[in-house]
Amino acid sequence: MSTRRYTLTISCPDRSGIIAAVSGFIARYNGWIVEASYHTDLETQRFFMRQEILADSLPFDLAGFRSQFAGLAIEFGMDWHISDSERRKRIVILVSKQDHCLNDLLHRWRNSELLVDIPCVISNHEDLRSFVEWHGIPFHYVAMPGNDASAKAAAFAQIAQLFEQHLGDTLVLARFMQIMPPELCTRYAGQIINIHHSFLPSFVGAKPYHQAFQRGVKLIGATCHYVSNELDAGPIIEQDTVRIDHGDTVDDMVRYGRDIEKTVLARGLRYHVEDRVLVCGNKTIVFR
Amino acid sequence: MSTRRYTLTISCPDRSGIIAAVSGFIARYNGWIVEASYHTDLETQRFFMRQEILADSLPFDLAGFRSQFAGLAIEFGMDWHISDSERRKRIVILVSKQDHCLNDLLHRWRNSELLVDIPCVISNHEDLRSFVEWHGIPFHYVAMPGNDASAKAAAFAQIAQLFEQHLGDTLVLARFMQIMPPELCTRYAGQIINIHHSFLPSFVGAKPYHQAFQRGVKLIGATCHYVSNELDAGPIIEQDTVRIDHGDTVDDMVRYGRDIEKTVLARGLRYHVEDRVLVCGNKTIVFR
Amino acid sequence: MSTRRYTLTISCPDRSGIIAAVSGFIARYNGWIVEASYHTDLETQRFFMRQEILADSLPFDLAGFRSQFAGLAIEFGMDWHISDSERRKRIVILVSKQDHCLNDLLHRWRNSELLVDIPCVISNHEDLRSFVEWHGIPFHYVAMPGNDASAKAAAFAQIAQLFEQHLGDTLVLARFMQIMPPELCTRYAGQIINIHHSFLPSFVGAKPYHQAFQRGVKLIGATCHYVSNELDAGPIIEQDTVRIDHGDTVDDMVRYGRDIEKTVLARGLRYHVEDRVLVCGNKTIVFR
Amino acid sequence: MSTRRYTLTISCPDRSGIIAAVSGFIARYNGWIVEASYHTDLETQRFFMRQEILADSLPFDLAGFRSQFAGLAIEFGMDWHISDSERRKRIVILVSKQDHCLNDLLHRWRNSELLVDIPCVISNHEDLRSFVEWHGIPFHYVAMPGNDASAKAAAFAQIAQLFEQHLGDTLVLARFMQIMPPELCTRYAGQIINIHHSFLPSFVGAKPYHQAFQRGVKLIGATCHYVSNELDAGPIIEQDTVRIDHGDTVDDMVRYGRDIEKTVLARGLRYHVEDRVLVCGNKTIVFR
Repeated sequence: MSTRRYTLTISCPDRSGIIAAVSGFIARYNGWIVEASYHTDLETQRFFMRQEILADSLPFDLAGFRSQFAGLAIEFGMDWHISDSERRKRIVILVSKQDHCLNDLLHRWRNSELLVDIPCVISNHEDLRSFVEWHGIPFHYVAMPGNDASAKAAAFAQIAQLFEQHLGDTLVLARFMQIMPPELCTRYAGQIINIHHSFLPSFVGAKPYHQAFQRGVKLIGATCHYVSNELDAGPIIEQDTVRIDHGDTVDDMVRYGRDIEKTVLARGLRYHVEDRVLVCGNKTIVFR
Repeated sequence: MSTRRYTLTISCPDRSGIIAAVSGFIARYNGWIVEASYHTDLETQRFFMRQEILADSLPFDLAGFRSQFAGLAIEFGMDWHISDSERRKRIVILVSKQDHCLNDLLHRWRNSELLVDIPCVISNHEDLRSFVEWHGIPFHYVAMPGNDASAKAAAFAQIAQLFEQHLGDTLVLARFMQIMPPELCTRYAGQIINIHHSFLPSFVGAKPYHQAFQRGVKLIGATCHYVSNELDAGPIIEQDTVRIDHGDTVDDMVRYGRDIEKTVLARGLRYHVEDRVLVCGNKTIVFR
Repeated sequence: MSTRRYTLTISCPDRSGIIAAVSGFIARYNGWIVEASYHTDLETQRFFMRQEILADSLPFDLAGFRSQFAGLAIEFGMDWHISDSERRKRIVILVSKQDHCLNDLLHRWRNSELLVDIPCVISNHEDLRSFVEWHGIPFHYVAMPGNDASAKAAAFAQIAQLFEQHLGDTLVLARFMQIMPPELCTRYAGQIINIHHSFLPSFVGAKPYHQAFQRGVKLIGATCHYVSNELDAGPIIEQDTVRIDHGDTVDDMVRYGRDIEKTVLARGLRYHVEDRVLVCGNKTIVFR
Repeated sequence: MSTRRYTLTISCPDRSGIIAAVSGFIARYNGWIVEASYHTDLETQRFFMRQEILADSLPFDLAGFRSQFAGLAIEFGMDWHISDSERRKRIVILVSKQDHCLNDLLHRWRNSELLVDIPCVISNHEDLRSFVEWHGIPFHYVAMPGNDASAKAAAFAQIAQLFEQHLGDTLVLARFMQIMPPELCTRYAGQIINIHHSFLPSFVGAKPYHQAFQRGVKLIGATCHYVSNELDAGPIIEQDTVRIDHGDTVDDMVRYGRDIEKTVLARGLRYHVEDRVLVCGNKTIVFR
């Protein structure tokens, strides 16, 4: 039996009988559940679930699943989604000059650890063209004029156009040192993932390692989050911290920070790609 | 509605339809599942599950549940167990002279973080009597003769007798510096929890911090595990490590080690008490 | 040879030759340095050092050291301090109702891990009297009227009086849920240590776990710091974090948080007591 | 003033006056010490120190330093070494098919985080040639015959020859899946660094993740160590661990493990390259 899987994610108002209804539906068609996770958010009284089912154990394809499942979904008032492990998500990466996250993601990709397609990389600098193209991935340069608002808007319009034209599912800001315009944040809500180089909500905005140095903290961190209209305030997917001490300069922090930035982004992106992240208000449920 | 819960744990041969059957059973009686976890062990092809159900949502008590559920359990070949959050587990603590784990457990107990009854503490030293009795908990001294095998057997027989007489469910070795005889390990399999002061399988047996110091490791650890006939080789419930460096002496390691020993034991014991630990061969599934 | 030690801490403007001058002074009297640490703060161009010297290796006592060393100290413009390991610091603990930090500190004290004298514990509740007195430590109740400013000022005056009367060196706020008045923060600058239940600078002030829950962070933390006039903004001594997930309620966070609060406070206090912490502006140098 | 530094490392029998003598020597020539670390090994009564001195603050070059310092070194019976930050160490990397450590090291190198020269990469597979050569680094393929002992000896002789011919200082086994012959371990003692994919001393030898899976540990680890004649038993430089749980397969462990392997190797190699590691018997002192 192949390991092809359907991943079903659901959120709906909480009540008794949801698990029974969904697992009963799957059992009726002899579907084989290989992973199942549940969560109730007590504040909103909403129920969240995720199930992985062996595709070959079911008698229908995605379209068939959708039409058979629709009635149940309406009955319980579900927001739901089903994906097929054979249809890889398409990830467009945005990067500036710092390449540690890009290098890490591309390694995981060529290593088949990160099971996505990368139709292109976009940058506001030419520096990383050769490295990206060595991988056989198209590289697009989009100039980012510093002070000209309308030129900047045009640049972001070009980024959006490249994203659409490459049929991207997710936009990954892999240390892209530009603030996304609200219009794109809204249009691609839940589709843009950023890595911020601090343990949010501490040290929002520019130069977080300098801020951390000034405050004299004993640990620094990194945060992977969905981008929302408010800067560095979107739903957090993953975070981590690392110990520093008084002997560490800002440059040392930057160096330590790179290691957690790339790990945190890679973990967060994997959760997203495997449909493990469900958004609930400004928070996330991550079914690891 | 009260927060009283029934916790149902099951293991059985894996097949499709188990989740549907169990959640269908509960849904049929309008039972409200508040926590549900599943795992398939691929080596043994065994399925494991744990569900917490609001007790008041079901129309029967534990006995009623047991009789209603029996048919399903037989059909699927289940090993299963159900417990009631109102019936606290009875924990008998064994301790020698070092009291950091005891102090930690008693604090969590008087703080209502660890929801157990502690019918007595048993020790082969008198040192901790006053501290234990301040808590209103009976303290039993059982002498442990160093070299006299038959006297030692008698001492362990007395410990077993105290355990039974106090209707103990679980025996916690909270830095009890004596090796349990095979006979008791067998009789109370899955009921004796030990904290070992190393990151097993490294540094089995006596003086693990001295062994760690000699090997020059850069992290030390602690392991909470079920006691089996083979020394420090039973199923591991929980572990953790802490960083040390070349400046740390054995005494420093002992000091750092105490902090992880007590945390690891407390976590492991909580998982056990809440029926979150299922044993599979010599390994554990811990549904956190 | 006894293990009695003198600990010498120095800060002065940076220049070449400081280590040579100080270690030369000690060598001239055949003093045996057993631990030595140095740091230069690049922003202020200040040099910091700490040395532990075997007391018996020197031909003079503290007073003798002070008079012999004075010339060198003036030459280099040193702020300096010398302490004797035989003269234990006197720690007065302030606590409200939550006792996990108090329980932890008293255990380390009776275990001879924390080498201090505890002349008394002060609380605005009577709850912990019996536990403190079991240790043979005096317990003082000081009522904290909620809304009456002058009565509150009188209560803090009484706390200050108890601290002075008991010849306290350091005031430890072990989850004391009251804000110290600016007057005492100034009078006892560098002498008051607080444990805050968040990873500062995130979640300053009241109910940090509720704030963390609302923001949806994936790790929570604790911070041990010197108290200054600005709330939760004094020099940080020690911090740590622990992983949580979407399934954890505020109560779970409080429970996880207790474990890091007590560990972080114990570590920070030990550094302070062993003269390992030197303050530089609003930051600390911690010579571990 | 430039940031060029001399790094002086010393070990000698412990006695009073060593720090004074060395720092006095440096001060006599107005040398500026920017980092200084000390350690006494109590078992061997040996003293270890490391000092970084601004090169421009001294009136002589390395040869001059050596001749001036020789008398003092003899007087105290010192093993000592001085290096110049302008003379980068030459690192030869050995790799098989798995490239996560290689990818990580080459990224840190092209990023100027790892300040070394990499004269060549050697592998027993051709897979990574293109990636290495993209960096402008020569790639040498050396076949490793499985069962023919004399052919294998010849292969290792070729590796040694390449190492010497490229004037290598250090040989890094970046997941090189072959056991170094004792003859090379002895010839290059302290010059060969390996990354082992377990938390040593647990799980020595082949397939450590499979061993970890079978034992049911709750954390896995990685160890960076000097290679000695005994397999996976040389002096440990750096280690770390990461949490896993019952849901993780061997493949998951391999994936998590890669992240700590590359981080632990990078940290250990940096310590080595910056002369921060001093070997004491089978242990290391790491002056971070």
